[in-house]
Amino acid sequence: MTDAAPRPTLEAVAARAGVSRATVSRVVNGGDGVRAPLVERVQRAVDELGYVPNRAARSLVTRRHDAVAVVIAEPETRVFADPFFALQLRGISKELTAHDNQLVLLLTEGRDDHTRVGRYLAGGHVDGALVFSLHLDDPLPGLIRRAGVPTVFGGRPGWRDDDERAAVYVDSDNRGGARDAVRHLAGLGRTRIAHITGPLDQTSAADRLAGYRDVMADGDPALVAEGDFTPAGGERAMRDLLDRCPDVDAVFAANDLTASGALRVLRERGRRVPDDVAVIGFDDMLPLAEQTEPPLTTVRQPIEEMGRLMARLLLGSLRHGDARAGGGGGGGGGEGTEPPTGVVLPTTLIRRDSA
Amino acid sequence: MTDAAPRPTLEAVAARAGVSRATVSRVVNGGDGVRAPLVERVQRAVDELGYVPNRAARSLVTRRHDAVAVVIAEPETRVFADPFFALQLRGISKELTAHDNQLVLLLTEGRDDHTRVGRYLAGGHVDGALVFSLHLDDPLPGLIRRAGVPTVFGGRPGWRDDDERAAVYVDSDNRGGARDAVRHLAGLGRTRIAHITGPLDQTSAADRLAGYRDVMADGDPALVAEGDFTPAGGERAMRDLLDRCPDVDAVFAANDLTASGALRVLRERGRRVPDDVAVIGFDDMLPLAEQTEPPLTTVRQPIEEMGRLMARLLLGSLRHGDARAGGGGGGGGGEGTEPPTGVVLPTTLIRRDSA
Repeated sequence: MTDAAPRPTLEAVAARAGVSRATVSRVVNGGDGVRAPLVERVQRAVDELGYVPNRAARSLVTRRHDAVAVVIAEPETRVFADPFFALQLRGISKELTAHDNQLVLLLTEGRDDHTRVGRYLAGGHVDGALVFSLHLDDPLPGLIRRAGVPTVFGGRPGWRDDDERAAVYVDSDNRGGARDAVRHLAGLGRTRIAHITGPLDQTSAADRLAGYRDVMADGDPALVAEGDFTPAGGERAMRDLLDRCPDVDAVFAANDLTASGALRVLRERGRRVPDDVAVIGFDDMLPLAEQTEPPLTTVRQPIEEMGRLMARLLLGSLRHGDARAGGGGGGGGGEGTEPPTGVVLPTTLIRRDSA
Repeated sequence: MTDAAPRPTLEAVAARAGVSRATVSRVVNGGDGVRAPLVERVQRAVDELGYVPNRAARSLVTRRHDAVAVVIAEPETRVFADPFFALQLRGISKELTAHDNQLVLLLTEGRDDHTRVGRYLAGGHVDGALVFSLHLDDPLPGLIRRAGVPTVFGGRPGWRDDDERAAVYVDSDNRGGARDAVRHLAGLGRTRIAHITGPLDQTSAADRLAGYRDVMADGDPALVAEGDFTPAGGERAMRDLLDRCPDVDAVFAANDLTASGALRVLRERGRRVPDDVAVIGFDDMLPLAEQTEPPLTTVRQPIEEMGRLMARLLLGSLRHGDARAGGGGGGGGGEGTEPPTGVVLPTTLIRRDSA
């Protein structure tokens, strides 16, 4: 029914190279103990025949698949609509490609699919996983833990302290960056500084709200409106804020997409930015942040670099696992060594015209 | 080093359910020959312990992974920038999810990565593959054929006749749709009808050009400019066309992204659309096609439905393989049965304001 031709066998390679099956097998599995001229001869035969070693069988021995799963716990409509994921994937993809590891992106339609994702991870198809965009009540971390694959998380997971201390994650300084943004607005003389949050079941959004509150300790609670990291959410929240607090003179939006929605509503309502209302975003998502009207002052986090670093930490841990256990893949808590904490990267305030 | 807890074993499930290992094993592998109350008891224990069956071992028996790879032969920057892929993935994802199959998206940075993709496909991690956006000189189809996994292609592959006849693919009527567009422009009384192509090493672009030529058989070759399915490519080509043929009075753009770039340049140069220059796109990509200025007349192809259909054909072929060979996964040419040809879906001209 489908397009499949017979696959060249190990025997065919051995015959073409004029060596034994065992020699081909040793070369294909790393070449240990085979003389260089023989290795070359086998590799030529492999290339000529287009032989693809049976990795399923091979990985039963080496326990390595040279593949890393990326799991994004969002419906694929969001994954493709938010450039944040594309940027992190670019960083991950570059790093994995540089180490000849295959990026395996596991998409989910919704929470019901997480069991299936856990099953795939447990199924011996990847050496490790990079997991993003967890929500606080997500069953996915538990499923991943049971799957027993080494994992690095994108963003602080936000679990109970003990579990979190055992988790490896890469995050940016969401709270510190938010503080910088709100202090900058206060420094401009603004006193009615609002915050449009992200979805508060994600630590990135919760931490940015905490940073806002660090500076606005006794602020008016009516100045906080909940958004969802999308432009439409930013529009809704900005409308609510203007209705509730018409004297608002500054907005710290939880990300640039949210800020772009807020800017649209401010323009509609005839408020000048930054004269009447100053606006700051978070991310420094390009080209968006330069193309808003006016160009957006924002808190830069190194998104692509975070992706690279996640991949680097995972690959390092897999190599480490190899060296210790001769097999990798099993993960293991690293008994006797200091459990690694999260890596938190600094943010930078980027001044453009909106604040 | 990383976050991994011990995984509950088959033995633990057997102990909890008060049944033998063999019973648990039979239930986990489909429940054949186990009495209903026992099945329930085992399933409760599985749920309580969060047991995940070892699919690697299981798939050695059943030869099924309940996972399908999607391979897009474009750098991930294009995959995320072009809503076409997001839409097809949505269709695929819905269909696979409905059949509890995991969508495994394999990203590639460039052509050098295709060997690695072939390796992953051959490695026994997926039951089949859906492959998109092939370029004519692409090594990927050969690698996939060698990997021996059942495959459905998105778009006519464009190989030598014999190979193509053996391939299963889903396409839309690119040539017929292009003819409709150009005939519509001619029906408006336009005589200097230009075409901005897509990348001509892809059959979708080549077929749309062929449809344009069907109608403009003795047209001025200077009216054809090469684009690349991106807005930037549409801008470049439109500038060239205006410089070369200032009397151009209509443009058929190979896709909506290209048309959006062409519209921008026409506006810059002070040409009114459709009065001075009528413009038609291809795709009916929403919301883009409704939000261009003016809203875009275009040739609709059912992108999401094409994704669904690809997934449906592949899953059907996998079931078919099961029934015939008791194992599936091996593909096989279907000797003695009629080789399936491509499925070509009709297109529709959608009239808005640009032509």
